[in-house]
Amino acid sequence: MSDPKSRRVGSASDSAVPKAVVSRLSLYLRELQHLIRDGHETTSSNRLGRVLGFTDAQVRKDLAYFGHFGYPGIGYRCEELIRAIRGILGTNQQWSVALIGAGNLGRALLGYKGFHQQGFCFVAAFDVDDAKIGGSIEGVEVFHLDRLPEMVQKNKIRLALLAVPAPAAQGVADRLVEAGIEGVLNFAPVTISLPGHVRQVGVDLAIELEQLAFGVMNRTTED
Amino acid sequence: MSDPKSRRVGSASDSAVPKAVVSRLSLYLRELQHLIRDGHETTSSNRLGRVLGFTDAQVRKDLAYFGHFGYPGIGYRCEELIRAIRGILGTNQQWSVALIGAGNLGRALLGYKGFHQQGFCFVAAFDVDDAKIGGSIEGVEVFHLDRLPEMVQKNKIRLALLAVPAPAAQGVADRLVEAGIEGVLNFAPVTISLPGHVRQVGVDLAIELEQLAFGVMNRTTED
Repeated sequence: MSDPKSRRVGSASDSAVPKAVVSRLSLYLRELQHLIRDGHETTSSNRLGRVLGFTDAQVRKDLAYFGHFGYPGIGYRCEELIRAIRGILGTNQQWSVALIGAGNLGRALLGYKGFHQQGFCFVAAFDVDDAKIGGSIEGVEVFHLDRLPEMVQKNKIRLALLAVPAPAAQGVADRLVEAGIEGVLNFAPVTISLPGHVRQVGVDLAIELEQLAFGVMNRTTED
Repeated sequence: MSDPKSRRVGSASDSAVPKAVVSRLSLYLRELQHLIRDGHETTSSNRLGRVLGFTDAQVRKDLAYFGHFGYPGIGYRCEELIRAIRGILGTNQQWSVALIGAGNLGRALLGYKGFHQQGFCFVAAFDVDDAKIGGSIEGVEVFHLDRLPEMVQKNKIRLALLAVPAPAAQGVADRLVEAGIEGVLNFAPVTISLPGHVRQVGVDLAIELEQLAFGVMNRTTED
């Protein structure tokens, strides 16, 4: 496992990687991308950890789940570690994504620059409102939800962002599954149930605000 | 520390609580709220953990940072643990929040039901676009950004959601600090720098999509 490029992820053994480790990979990736943008070619577990509030031991332990990435006397090569992490996360390939629900949140998500930068490409939006269908938002065409199965097949869409009102969420989610969508990012503030072979991540924006409230409540003078 | 109600958080010692523990508190809180809604009065660390993908030991260890909440032979009383966690997070009080940037994302955030449910109340929105100022979105009035300091003081606004375009983010953030805002939830896809006494949480929606991609890539048949 000394050559990160030879490392392939996708075996059943990876189910043993804790979720929290995978979510930290995204943070490491983003920080490495900042470092590259600022002209740094190498970095250390110490530096990566410090910026993100983790110990260097934590950084090394997290990365060790996936291989051996550091070089003695050098640390991590940023470009190489970025490539490795994108390989692990699966974002070294382009993902075709559908947006479901072209309301305010849907429009905002279509315009969110961060998705495209990380390898996610909106290929179609869907709604049931005739006033929206046939139009285009941020260069993405809006189709009737009935056309989802056809479009999923034609454009090899694997992921969907669900941005419909809460009462509609489960019904629409069922249609996503039928259409062959493999992963759903759920922005509706309700829990949806999906069959085991379809992945789901729920986005609860209030969690971030709660974390902020805790941070404000627990400020100490030495911060 | 046997009575959760007697436990107060806010001392310097709390800075020793890992961030990841605090973010799991939000997940426990949300799951407890679901349990109550479904008619459950008590639960166990085993059940709380299982739904969220953590071990029961992890749940007990996380909660032990803040006190002793379980009862032998009963487990956790949901209502009591909800009150305790809200006390720890600081969301047992109402927080006045400002929305900065009334574009698509801002409109979506103002309409997001989850914030209000968790104790966050939008009291004003701010923009610099004359076409938006004086109007109202989801019942929240839009003011010119110049009126921020006055409104912050008058309405005791402590937190701000920053939903402005990336190039404007740092400049607006500086104005938030001047106006006395204590915590910023940053939706702009750039890092902003704030003085140490102002808390910041960055929301990177692409991270959630990366986690979903990893989940889809690493599905195993036993899932």
